[in-house]
Amino acid sequence: MQETKVAVIGLGKAGLPLAAVIADSGFEVIGIDLDPKKCEKINSGINPIPEEIGLDELVEEHGGKNLKAYPDYEKARDCQAYIIIVPLYIDETNNPDFSILESACRNVGRLIKKGDLISVETTLPPLTMEKLVKKWIEEESGMKLGEFYLAYSPERIMTGYSISRLREFPKIVGGVDEESGKRGFEFYKKFVPNLNLVSNARTAEFIKVIEGCYRDVNVALANELYKIAEELGIDFYEAREFANHEYCHIHLPSTGVGGHCIPVYPWFLIKEMEKREKFEHARLLRTARELNDEMIHYWAARIISECLNIKKPLSDVKICIKGISFRDGVKELYHSRNLALAEYLKAKGLNVFVYDELFSKEEIEDLGFNYDEPEKADVVFHSYDLRIERKD
Amino acid sequence: MQETKVAVIGLGKAGLPLAAVIADSGFEVIGIDLDPKKCEKINSGINPIPEEIGLDELVEEHGGKNLKAYPDYEKARDCQAYIIIVPLYIDETNNPDFSILESACRNVGRLIKKGDLISVETTLPPLTMEKLVKKWIEEESGMKLGEFYLAYSPERIMTGYSISRLREFPKIVGGVDEESGKRGFEFYKKFVPNLNLVSNARTAEFIKVIEGCYRDVNVALANELYKIAEELGIDFYEAREFANHEYCHIHLPSTGVGGHCIPVYPWFLIKEMEKREKFEHARLLRTARELNDEMIHYWAARIISECLNIKKPLSDVKICIKGISFRDGVKELYHSRNLALAEYLKAKGLNVFVYDELFSKEEIEDLGFNYDEPEKADVVFHSYDLRIERKD
Repeated sequence: MQETKVAVIGLGKAGLPLAAVIADSGFEVIGIDLDPKKCEKINSGINPIPEEIGLDELVEEHGGKNLKAYPDYEKARDCQAYIIIVPLYIDETNNPDFSILESACRNVGRLIKKGDLISVETTLPPLTMEKLVKKWIEEESGMKLGEFYLAYSPERIMTGYSISRLREFPKIVGGVDEESGKRGFEFYKKFVPNLNLVSNARTAEFIKVIEGCYRDVNVALANELYKIAEELGIDFYEAREFANHEYCHIHLPSTGVGGHCIPVYPWFLIKEMEKREKFEHARLLRTARELNDEMIHYWAARIISECLNIKKPLSDVKICIKGISFRDGVKELYHSRNLALAEYLKAKGLNVFVYDELFSKEEIEDLGFNYDEPEKADVVFHSYDLRIERKD
Repeated sequence: MQETKVAVIGLGKAGLPLAAVIADSGFEVIGIDLDPKKCEKINSGINPIPEEIGLDELVEEHGGKNLKAYPDYEKARDCQAYIIIVPLYIDETNNPDFSILESACRNVGRLIKKGDLISVETTLPPLTMEKLVKKWIEEESGMKLGEFYLAYSPERIMTGYSISRLREFPKIVGGVDEESGKRGFEFYKKFVPNLNLVSNARTAEFIKVIEGCYRDVNVALANELYKIAEELGIDFYEAREFANHEYCHIHLPSTGVGGHCIPVYPWFLIKEMEKREKFEHARLLRTARELNDEMIHYWAARIISECLNIKKPLSDVKICIKGISFRDGVKELYHSRNLALAEYLKAKGLNVFVYDELFSKEEIEDLGFNYDEPEKADVVFHSYDLRIERKD
């Protein structure tokens, strides 16, 4: 058993795999999550996120032993390292909503003692650590940075593969001051094999965000090239296959980009530049973001165009959106463009219903949609492979 | 010696390496180039493009023997395969200027006999082969496609590495009709080890263009992220180093994108979409293009900002632009953004002069600039490494 006792704040899709991997490295880990049922499960050795490969075994082995979960921050009072890994959403104006993070930081601030290390793993707008997190923790702890240490090490997991990611993928850490960087590096080094110390927390924040920007812009490019290929009568997928090589990485087209990550991170930079009145510094990021979000209009037009071939009044044509998650195989609707597409068609007055293998009839109906089998439709849109199928 | 006799039309940076590699594969090659001096050189075994690695040896071995160069198309009359690899520029409105290509195609059209194969390697706007090249050749030859064969196989060379590229890099070929594709494939297979037949010529045209679009958009992204990093006080290069991994390929920032290739190809798609009134189908490509071209305004502002530190009237501050080629190590000014930056500063009335190791004083002066050593300047802009140096 390592002598450091580690608290992990937030046992979600990113936090629990991290807590389990740290426990598996021989640390005593206290996990904090506001959901008491989830904590009970973990303490009984039952993995609440079964889709995460390898997590069942780790929770079974360590849950209730050197990984104990509680809804109460007080249980983490005697830890020496605190990792905060809670969600950060954007609001309706695409500005970051720091409320969950602030609450977690303030709660941790009330627990820490001199010499403790706090690390945040949540993806953040650059400068959040030095401007906000530091202030929240100083206010609650009554200490100044230097009495405690503050590092940033963004999670780089991929849902479903978090554990192998943690064990293989390069991880970075940066400190709000130099000593924090060093202490953060020494701490993570104990359970992360491929670790790099970068200049400071803001660089580490920026690194994580620009990875997301790369993805968002390149999906937007794929979507734009897909539209052009269709217009020119060219099979985009064939072209992509032969265009891609060592120096060319054209992504896959889609109905847009959903989920908690990629569609959110570019806004961190866009909004910060807007605040500084440097509007022109985020033109490409904004164009890509809009282009991806507006792909549902393109697909709606394509679906309606297919309805031309059905010899019924348009309002009688039954349209099935098959697949409403933001990504195939993941039951998650946050910023799902497939769900947005169904809503868009419904709002136009079209006769649309929804089918998704991962959702029950009741769940679909709770979302405000009719549910039926794709066989009942005249036109089926297969969201995940961008295929419009006509049944006649 | 292979029995097919091959004509290569255009012995420029792309054409001559190709002609030499084909000759080296045992074909008899007739090269056509309008410049008689270049032809003489080649026939004497002297390589007119010495910066191309490995080309000296090939021209020495084959020049005047199984690679003969002429300014006169008539010398290529008894060939069975014609490869057209001439430049295609864009005009002031960013529309393709087909005049050189049309002239080459019409000249070849007058030479061909029944059963001959014509292949174009020039990067083209999609549909050029089936809409224009076919028409030009049919008009001049008096034959219809089917009597001759028409394929498209875009060059994928990189200046300086064309020969290794030709021998190692995957190459694609597509026919204007099915038989042309087959014949094109059989022909190239004789000297290209890594060859793929794609569905048709327009797919092959599109493949080459979207490779360029990927590069242009990703350079624009790098430039935008560079500006944001500077604004936030983050070292972009450090961030890029740690952001890039298997799934992330953030490019390098620059003063923009120059040369004959990358800044030209996106316009092929943008202008075609405009013609079809599908303006929204090329928003990202256009934004990236503008962003790259406008990077010189960003750099001009940064340079002028550095002049604040010089205790002289601004009009007396000597500014040196060190490096005016579009790329380091290549003496080429086509759409050079470094040259455009110097022009932009000069037009603003600043006291700017130019220095470039690859250009003589006379050459710089012929461009309308003063020439001097960087040491004479108060502020030096190192174009290729984006560094502003103050001499005081």
